[in-house]
Amino acid sequence: MSTAITKRKFLQSVGAIVGPAAMYRSMTALGMMGAGTAQANTLDLPIGSGRGKHVVILGAGIGGLVAAYELSRAGYTCTVLEATARAGGRNFTARGGDVIHEEDSQQWVGFDYGDHLYANLGAARIPHRHRAILGYCREFGVGMEVFTNDNRGALFHHEDHFEGRPVTARRVMTDARGYIAELLVKAADGNALDAELTSEDKERLTGMLRGFGGLNADGLYTGSSRGGYVGEYAGTELGFPGEVHAPLGLTALLQSGFLNYRFNWNEFLDQNPTLLQPIGGMDAIADAFEYRVGHLIRYRSPVERIEQTATGARITYSHDGRPSQSLEADFAISTIPFPVLKDIPNNFSAETQAAIEAVQYSPAVKIAFQTRRRFWEEDQAIYGGISWTNKDITQVWYPAAGYHRNKGVILGAYIWDDAPALLYTDRTPFEREQAAIEEGEHLFPGYTSEIEAGVSRAWAKVPYQKGAYALGYSVSERLRSPEGAIYFAGEQISGMTGWQEGAVLATYAVLEAINDRVAAERG
Amino acid sequence: MSTAITKRKFLQSVGAIVGPAAMYRSMTALGMMGAGTAQANTLDLPIGSGRGKHVVILGAGIGGLVAAYELSRAGYTCTVLEATARAGGRNFTARGGDVIHEEDSQQWVGFDYGDHLYANLGAARIPHRHRAILGYCREFGVGMEVFTNDNRGALFHHEDHFEGRPVTARRVMTDARGYIAELLVKAADGNALDAELTSEDKERLTGMLRGFGGLNADGLYTGSSRGGYVGEYAGTELGFPGEVHAPLGLTALLQSGFLNYRFNWNEFLDQNPTLLQPIGGMDAIADAFEYRVGHLIRYRSPVERIEQTATGARITYSHDGRPSQSLEADFAISTIPFPVLKDIPNNFSAETQAAIEAVQYSPAVKIAFQTRRRFWEEDQAIYGGISWTNKDITQVWYPAAGYHRNKGVILGAYIWDDAPALLYTDRTPFEREQAAIEEGEHLFPGYTSEIEAGVSRAWAKVPYQKGAYALGYSVSERLRSPEGAIYFAGEQISGMTGWQEGAVLATYAVLEAINDRVAAERG
Repeated sequence: MSTAITKRKFLQSVGAIVGPAAMYRSMTALGMMGAGTAQANTLDLPIGSGRGKHVVILGAGIGGLVAAYELSRAGYTCTVLEATARAGGRNFTARGGDVIHEEDSQQWVGFDYGDHLYANLGAARIPHRHRAILGYCREFGVGMEVFTNDNRGALFHHEDHFEGRPVTARRVMTDARGYIAELLVKAADGNALDAELTSEDKERLTGMLRGFGGLNADGLYTGSSRGGYVGEYAGTELGFPGEVHAPLGLTALLQSGFLNYRFNWNEFLDQNPTLLQPIGGMDAIADAFEYRVGHLIRYRSPVERIEQTATGARITYSHDGRPSQSLEADFAISTIPFPVLKDIPNNFSAETQAAIEAVQYSPAVKIAFQTRRRFWEEDQAIYGGISWTNKDITQVWYPAAGYHRNKGVILGAYIWDDAPALLYTDRTPFEREQAAIEEGEHLFPGYTSEIEAGVSRAWAKVPYQKGAYALGYSVSERLRSPEGAIYFAGEQISGMTGWQEGAVLATYAVLEAINDRVAAERG
Repeated sequence: MSTAITKRKFLQSVGAIVGPAAMYRSMTALGMMGAGTAQANTLDLPIGSGRGKHVVILGAGIGGLVAAYELSRAGYTCTVLEATARAGGRNFTARGGDVIHEEDSQQWVGFDYGDHLYANLGAARIPHRHRAILGYCREFGVGMEVFTNDNRGALFHHEDHFEGRPVTARRVMTDARGYIAELLVKAADGNALDAELTSEDKERLTGMLRGFGGLNADGLYTGSSRGGYVGEYAGTELGFPGEVHAPLGLTALLQSGFLNYRFNWNEFLDQNPTLLQPIGGMDAIADAFEYRVGHLIRYRSPVERIEQTATGARITYSHDGRPSQSLEADFAISTIPFPVLKDIPNNFSAETQAAIEAVQYSPAVKIAFQTRRRFWEEDQAIYGGISWTNKDITQVWYPAAGYHRNKGVILGAYIWDDAPALLYTDRTPFEREQAAIEEGEHLFPGYTSEIEAGVSRAWAKVPYQKGAYALGYSVSERLRSPEGAIYFAGEQISGMTGWQEGAVLATYAVLEAINDRVAAERG
């Protein structure tokens, strides 16, 4: 039966499980409902539609929390089984006094207490187009502030280029635009584009390019105030323009790799401004859900077995280490990450189990440091944003909160490439911090002396997570269909892996499928 | 005597008045003081150096407040004469209940009370490199948050292009980059740049351009996810990518004017991220100064006459409309805007008076509206940033505060071009609001019904201001030298007209000149 229903639910679009609410959303999205009526990405399960039905939800991350919240509102009875002692999953903020567990280590977070002294070690930014998760922030009154990705005062660093000294983003970007514009003006002036452009367009284009690149009157790029001034952190007397930087060489820029994806990072749809973060830490979102559905969550309850039954699903779990117990429900929704789920005994089809085992997760690592002063602001006028380095730490994120306050928590590493991430994962927390500080010294001479405390999160070693986010290409279509009454959810089945929005949208698809199924059964 | 001293103070750089502190700053700025020691743009007048000297400061805007604060700390006796009843000058935030005066009108601001319901009608953003004003924010504990200039979800609108419908910034920018990259790849492939590039650079360049422009495998631009999806405000089911927008035509883009300075706006040095604003309103800065030097300010004390005397300066002023009184001091610092100063009787040289009369100020106008809901966030996922239109209102600014809250204050117009600004200036406040709403309807159909209250500020009509900011080219070098013991300050004499930073740096230059003069006199 479930197969037939499942097929009915599939449209031609990739993996789409579409119910009436989804159809409504698509219509509003396409502007078919008229301006002003669109409330994009809300789920409107009919009130009372779930009466008498029990759903067990595995995992109290964002996906599980959304499921519990929405199903409860629709009248379903919900039970959430959460393996750990907290809600949120990879929505995870570390603060002073926290104890952070990995498979083979524990860390006590030595940050001071302060509302700006925290580290979002999982989800850390919300693009403005992520309407579903932002919708909950709005509904729950979670205070939001800007998260800065693109800061032209941040740095590009490669130890083998530009004498190993960091260069400001504004110089890299300004000079690259300058060269691009100059070359295209030359090509146009040399009539190389006459087959492509009308003479009118050509004239407009070259005019536009002068502005685009900051070219001089001769159409040449010789540096631009956009790249800042020598001694750029202080105004000259009376604020008159200083000496413009000589352009970084085109060859040197091309060789540095700065102009590869790093140069375009802020252009990507989910990386371009505006991005947001909750004030005080990403877990404000998890907290807001927990306030509403916390009574439905059984904490410290790892799942030991998942079974389809004739009438639904049976979940066996332990609680606080006491003897196992079972729970039967009409439906189960598993948000358990597949790298964890694959080792939980079940009676899934061989095809499903194989699909689960095939899913790969990123072993991404984040490392955060409390510093005794906000040296990036004080010394270099860097307010938020991200610096890049070719060292394994990959990125340094400056905090988007607590500007000008006494101390700060900087993200000293965000590593997602497999090799360096696994290298850092294998290290002890102490070794990770030492290595990240040593690498950070290349960006900030004197860094070591600024640091007061650190914490790291190697997601591949986090119990009940075993990875940071699913690598989408490894996720089979099979996992977007239920196994009988058991549905899979989480960011992992979505088209937006690694984003909270993906977790919400995955839950929405599952809830619509369940609700349609219940409605169909009731006739 | 003053001339000799003045000349000594001038370096070859444009209008620089350099003292020991400035020299120190220049050295730190140039990295000559070693990393970590730089405290850019602080003024360190020696404690007690001003003992026994009296300085009268004309105007309690940012420049005057800085003068009073720094001179007091150095031991000078200070008196600030302020024509109005408040400090801050063009650092001006309107809130519910305020009464706004212009020459021929009064407005009562009908906004609700709420910490996010305010309008910065003067200074409204602080670039991260403006170290002097940010230094005071830090020193005084003024809470700061991000001001967003560059929001790719904001709009470009021209009534004669793209069927008069607004287009998102991300589409304009993505498509323009795509075309630029495609054309340059074609030129390079056609060997048009062989004289410019080595074959190795050419290969690296074309590879880089594919990333820069989001080109397809054939090096062509056919649209990109960076520009968003059709129905972009809602994710597709499960968050899989939707249909990419067809590119806006190159000819149409070039003709629209979107690719002129608007396209490059966020690249300009003082417009590129990160920018900041005080939490709760720009006047938090004025308030912080007033808390410290308010006891030195005589409010409601317009200046009636300014005279050089044998020993310093004599200022005649009224107070609360009572008979005129005079005040003698060793020095005077006038921050009075030149369009106001020119009409105050004085005994300046004819050359100075002519220079004052030649200064032109921008007649910029700002209009703000409280709306019943934050329709830009709710309907279009626009969080902060700026939309452009060819209508006279020029720009619409979305508030960078109060995200997701119940109501908001939007800047419905920021007009700086002379013709439209003067047109709006000539209107009554009611007419301005009606006109701005009507024009705004082109950007937001239904706009009118969202608006609850409005306020406008036509700076050319503001008493004791008579303009928004000095047009730098109209300011003679003469005004950067004192008239005997009378110094001119304010953003107007700086190289950063229109910025609070300019006002601070102008004051610094004057204070250093006065302090050096006092030190020289004492031998």
